[in-house]
Amino acid sequence: MPINVLHDLLDANEHYSETFAWGELTREPRRGYAVVTCMDARIVPTQMLGIAYGDANVLRNAGAVVTEDILRSLIVSHHLLGTNQALVVGHTDCGLQAFSDQQIADRIEAELGVSVPTRFLAFEDVDASVVGSVTRIRGCELLPRTYSASGFVYDVRTGRLRQVA
Amino acid sequence: MPINVLHDLLDANEHYSETFAWGELTREPRRGYAVVTCMDARIVPTQMLGIAYGDANVLRNAGAVVTEDILRSLIVSHHLLGTNQALVVGHTDCGLQAFSDQQIADRIEAELGVSVPTRFLAFEDVDASVVGSVTRIRGCELLPRTYSASGFVYDVRTGRLRQVA
Repeated sequence: MPINVLHDLLDANEHYSETFAWGELTREPRRGYAVVTCMDARIVPTQMLGIAYGDANVLRNAGAVVTEDILRSLIVSHHLLGTNQALVVGHTDCGLQAFSDQQIADRIEAELGVSVPTRFLAFEDVDASVVGSVTRIRGCELLPRTYSASGFVYDVRTGRLRQVA
Repeated sequence: MPINVLHDLLDANEHYSETFAWGELTREPRRGYAVVTCMDARIVPTQMLGIAYGDANVLRNAGAVVTEDILRSLIVSHHLLGTNQALVVGHTDCGLQAFSDQQIADRIEAELGVSVPTRFLAFEDVDASVVGSVTRIRGCELLPRTYSASGFVYDVRTGRLRQVA
């Protein structure tokens, strides 16, 4: 890792730890919910949703797609940490909506000269993608019937959420 | 989802969007790095590492374990969004260190009465888990040789990072 970025991050952590005031919190989210959203650099979940320290589990991957790994994490979040609800938050201008799986594979092959078996979970319609993700959570047999899920699309231009599921 | 939590989150978003000032950012992280960390409620990546708006892709799952889904996300982050480095940040007092896969399976079976085929990726040693995750990134053939990865353990009692890879 280039020294400048790593140095800056560790320097920021040094300052952070000097006034750190959250050492007494336990691992169970105080408000009992989980958020699944995208890795996008323009999403700051704490600010987007007003999440306070220790309130919620936050899960993020490319696309806010509910994969097997996200389901594993939600199952752990419920059964070990007591969460009972999830919000899935996709967003406008997502890289996985702008490019298709084939276009991503072509880019990788052009840069690295390797053939690409992986699927990248690109989607054409963010609303439909979020609805599909919420449906997968609702159908997960390792979560109880009382577990609830809802879905939203975040507009990166306005900062506003719109409910879609 | 219980109305009180959802109401509070949407109310917070309403206030947030009223003064939203980041609508001009593009999807490419400005500082070209990604962070992989745990969903734990006590981790706030922006504060832990001083990440500014639009700087970095942030990926989170149960345990900060680099799974196939995390690799998919890092590959998308590099090839579509231009990131060239990743930090993996595990943490002390993680639920996946406190419980074994078998204990998690037993809890689920006790609550839901279903048998559990899923593996939960519990680990015994957080340092070794982070080192393993960094090794998986370094060995990923869909990332270039110039891509760099480093690993840290975050102490939830002190707010401090310790480098392990």
